[in-house]
Amino acid sequence: MNIREFQDMMRQIYFHHDSKRGAKGTYLWLAEEVEELGEALKGNDKKALEKEFADVLAWLASLANVVDVNLEEAAMTKYNQRCPRCKQVPCKCARSFQP
Amino acid sequence: MNIREFQDMMRQIYFHHDSKRGAKGTYLWLAEEVEELGEALKGNDKKALEKEFADVLAWLASLANVVDVNLEEAAMTKYNQRCPRCKQVPCKCARSFQP
Repeated sequence: MNIREFQDMMRQIYFHHDSKRGAKGTYLWLAEEVEELGEALKGNDKKALEKEFADVLAWLASLANVVDVNLEEAAMTKYNQRCPRCKQVPCKCARSFQP
Repeated sequence: MNIREFQDMMRQIYFHHDSKRGAKGTYLWLAEEVEELGEALKGNDKKALEKEFADVLAWLASLANVVDVNLEEAAMTKYNQRCPRCKQVPCKCARSFQP
């Protein structure tokens, strides 16, 4: 399924809730789901982990709907088949993306 | 682009970095990007906001690569054309997903 199609599916299922809740409330849910994903990473339940990944993607799409961002277009604009910094595949950035 | 194709693209560009960093480090980056998305929501720079959405999706895909989760399959298993709770479109859950 395309990223755009997934976002549209979330719109069909949840936009009536999402739009009422608004950007701030929807963001808080996204942040909570990201925390739950972090907890699931500590366990060894693969199915539970997969559900948390699904939830984060779902809430990210919901939030994008609320603020009228095309998630697929945004992702493909920045990450268009190469690293946006060094422009190479694989990325050749030195010590890139290290926390 | 399919969710699966996007995840594969992230793998081609970043897996050599992601696998070395590991799940915990990659999760920390995801969490940081989610915070940056929250900050961007407070501003009114649409392009900057779109970049933050792109980054969250990119790091979610990177993390999925590190822990060997198929993000598209996970999302479609849970959100298969309907709300996973009430099974309806649009979702009919009462007060659902309210923070």
